[in-house]
Amino acid sequence: MPKEQFLNAMRCLAASVSVVSVKDSSGKSYAMTASSVTSLTIEPPAILVCVNKDASIHHVLEQGAEICINILNNDQQEISNLCSAKDAEPSRFKNDHWNQDGVPFLKHAQSNIFCEVDKIIEYHSHSIVISKVIQAKSAEPFNTLIYADGRYLS
Amino acid sequence: MPKEQFLNAMRCLAASVSVVSVKDSSGKSYAMTASSVTSLTIEPPAILVCVNKDASIHHVLEQGAEICINILNNDQQEISNLCSAKDAEPSRFKNDHWNQDGVPFLKHAQSNIFCEVDKIIEYHSHSIVISKVIQAKSAEPFNTLIYADGRYLS
Repeated sequence: MPKEQFLNAMRCLAASVSVVSVKDSSGKSYAMTASSVTSLTIEPPAILVCVNKDASIHHVLEQGAEICINILNNDQQEISNLCSAKDAEPSRFKNDHWNQDGVPFLKHAQSNIFCEVDKIIEYHSHSIVISKVIQAKSAEPFNTLIYADGRYLS
Repeated sequence: MPKEQFLNAMRCLAASVSVVSVKDSSGKSYAMTASSVTSLTIEPPAILVCVNKDASIHHVLEQGAEICINILNNDQQEISNLCSAKDAEPSRFKNDHWNQDGVPFLKHAQSNIFCEVDKIIEYHSHSIVISKVIQAKSAEPFNTLIYADGRYLS
């Protein structure tokens, strides 16, 4: 199968844009944009996200790590770009978007989903990170940032 | 954490609506609506979908099974409802939407992604079904059916 066939089909798969954020044991913050966040089970409340092993955040996402999955709202395209562009890595937390008192989270996201990583399943270049949800807080009204067809939908 | 907190956050997670379809060894067709389809790796081309163990399709999704993940287009809300409502199960294939010559697939979907199930990972009530993509075909223009906030987005 030509790779292009697969990539074209993946462009048809619309998804919310989220940012996964975490601190390592030295207190350094990491963040990564992800469109692969998916609800898994209700009992226990659990979600998953697929993370490339090459991502700088990957080694921090161990079992027991406390993370936040921030579902972005439609005004936060800039944050999505900041947390996905490799060369923007040093400036990801040099702004006023974050609360970094504990687990880092985005102050004005559509949702902040605080989780504890429960299981990591490796599959070739990626890890499937399954996390149990500890606390979640969502804003009104619904105005989620959605990516598909190689662009943000409006 | 109150379950409602989690469900509210999950309502903020927008996603394409897909239908997973497969035949069992006796030739009986099964289909299930899913909003948990996610791209996993490019090398190999692989995607995942989370499936409730109570779903009638679940037992057919074994390693090696050939399945189709049909990404619905915005005109196919009726098919989404047909393949999600439990009481509509007997009538899911009693219509002209399907080609059932081989692996059943929806003729006018946004994308038909033909896969072979590679791995099943159990997690409480659900299985994470990882499939390698064999062939994919996508329609133009982009007009994917998206579900979020408890409704289809238009």
